[in-house]
Amino acid sequence: MNLDSLTQNNGEWLRGNGPEADIVISSRIRLARNLSSYPFSNRGSAHQKAEIETSLRDRLTRLDFMPRLEYLMLPGLSSIDRQLLVERQLISRELANTEGPRGVAVCPQETVSIMINEEDHLRLQVMRSGFALDEAWQDIDRLDDQIEQRVNYAFSEEFGYLTACPTNVGTGMRSSVMLHLPALVLTKQIEKVFRALQKINLAVRGLYGEGSRASGDFYQISNQVTLGKSETTILTEIREVIPQIISYERQARSTLTRESRQALHDRVRRAYGTLKNAMMMTSEETMDLLSSVRLGVNLGLIEDVSIPTVNELFIHTQPAHLQKLMGAALDGEERNAARARYLSSRLRENGPHLN
Amino acid sequence: MNLDSLTQNNGEWLRGNGPEADIVISSRIRLARNLSSYPFSNRGSAHQKAEIETSLRDRLTRLDFMPRLEYLMLPGLSSIDRQLLVERQLISRELANTEGPRGVAVCPQETVSIMINEEDHLRLQVMRSGFALDEAWQDIDRLDDQIEQRVNYAFSEEFGYLTACPTNVGTGMRSSVMLHLPALVLTKQIEKVFRALQKINLAVRGLYGEGSRASGDFYQISNQVTLGKSETTILTEIREVIPQIISYERQARSTLTRESRQALHDRVRRAYGTLKNAMMMTSEETMDLLSSVRLGVNLGLIEDVSIPTVNELFIHTQPAHLQKLMGAALDGEERNAARARYLSSRLRENGPHLN
Repeated sequence: MNLDSLTQNNGEWLRGNGPEADIVISSRIRLARNLSSYPFSNRGSAHQKAEIETSLRDRLTRLDFMPRLEYLMLPGLSSIDRQLLVERQLISRELANTEGPRGVAVCPQETVSIMINEEDHLRLQVMRSGFALDEAWQDIDRLDDQIEQRVNYAFSEEFGYLTACPTNVGTGMRSSVMLHLPALVLTKQIEKVFRALQKINLAVRGLYGEGSRASGDFYQISNQVTLGKSETTILTEIREVIPQIISYERQARSTLTRESRQALHDRVRRAYGTLKNAMMMTSEETMDLLSSVRLGVNLGLIEDVSIPTVNELFIHTQPAHLQKLMGAALDGEERNAARARYLSSRLRENGPHLN
Repeated sequence: MNLDSLTQNNGEWLRGNGPEADIVISSRIRLARNLSSYPFSNRGSAHQKAEIETSLRDRLTRLDFMPRLEYLMLPGLSSIDRQLLVERQLISRELANTEGPRGVAVCPQETVSIMINEEDHLRLQVMRSGFALDEAWQDIDRLDDQIEQRVNYAFSEEFGYLTACPTNVGTGMRSSVMLHLPALVLTKQIEKVFRALQKINLAVRGLYGEGSRASGDFYQISNQVTLGKSETTILTEIREVIPQIISYERQARSTLTRESRQALHDRVRRAYGTLKNAMMMTSEETMDLLSSVRLGVNLGLIEDVSIPTVNELFIHTQPAHLQKLMGAALDGEERNAARARYLSSRLRENGPHLN
């Protein structure tokens, strides 16, 4: 897999054309799995980890999965390339930053990725654009079955799948939906939504997982509980709550449009103007401004830029993507200048700015 | 005088082409004068004020001053028209807002204005674009002589010209220079400059006189003392200190250009982008953003807009000017929307924005 080619497209998660794509960015399911014949990664020797990596790599690349998975060995990648995979949500920050034999199998559309030697021996992930948890579940369930035919998973009749961290035991499943909720943030209703979600044991995280700030008004909502419930029950719980949040966000958008259209339009146009004109731009500010622009496009307040373009800018302005696009390693200051130049040239391409 | 025509040009004080015009906006001298045969305005009866107004109006409009002065009776003007004259610095806020017979004689270029029945019976003012105190002095001295041939000024051999407020007794002269000092503000040296000026008895005020905030980084520097010094001495004191402030501002500009060119360019371009794209804009924010743009134009960081245009936008976006231009009375919210539309259309006129 040529990593440089990744910057030519948006991957699956920012494709922007799935169901409810104006609010639901993507749906994602991951399964944590371990081999019964080896200790968990945190207790395995270097030798054992190397054996696990070799054997799983061999099996994964020969799976009957169409299109074929391509395999990347993490130790052979530069830190920018590893960061690139994190930014595309294909690997975790943990996998990028630990040491030792480890890798990821990815399908070209970036809908499937399988990490080897992360916290668990195997972390399967399926991603779908928009609100499509069922489709993601069908894919990952089939993938899991195929792998299970070739390896012995650590499994207990009593607990279910065994995992390195007790919080994943049972189904080993984390299903999550990434939402863009700018209107709930603007109308200060987002905290209320979070409290309601926490009461029903759903977790809310920022764009890049645990501990990350919700830059760009992106929120990941996922199940906390993996034990004592079937996969179907967990999926049903999330699947039922998401339409409610979508409806709250739509209500907030129509309230804003009705009661403070002028102020909203002002905010959106200022964000657009700043993105086109600034000479220095941090990643954080970019996300916040693009969030306003994304809302503006969805509400018809900006007509000369498309949602796929805005989505692409979200990911292309991340540090590793930016350096890939510029073809050079850049320090923070240089990135801020390059990011501003890139945004300005991409947004000015969109022709006359008359609206 | 057709007040609507005033919005077709910049007047003298924002013409922007006098000496040192990148920093010195204008030079202004005013003389406070009273008639010996009447009590000061604050003690005069309505009848006496009416007499003063009638008699001075008659004399001023027949002065041999070329081009002829035109006379405006304040009570006959709408509040927007009075505010328009304040914004153009042709009358004081006090004259606009008090009651009773009062007026102003103005020459078409707006270099000369003579208020009747302000705090003093007569307030003569001469304004020049750029750093031109001597020229302003020659003009106002000649004007003062012409008037003095026709009326008896209240004058004491001991004190000089007598005025309603003791702070003006003596010469009755206030000479002031309006400076644009954005780099001294950005480099946080402005307070130091002010303290030095106060030590030598010079006052610093904002754009619209006493008590007004220094919007847009405009500062008026003027003499405090009117008694015990000749006009020439007062003028010399100011004339000598201004080149130093100009030199400090130039140093601060070159420091910024050398040491933080990127951050400065960023600030300037963001201001420009916001002015072109916002949908709501207060007068205060407009001044601050235009100040950055003005600095940017002077430093060659923005090439598609000229200083006279920026100067014009400073005055055209003031509340009364804006309402004149729109041809309607507008409330605050409507003005903010109209101001943003006006700025956006004026700045977009300037062709492609490629730099």
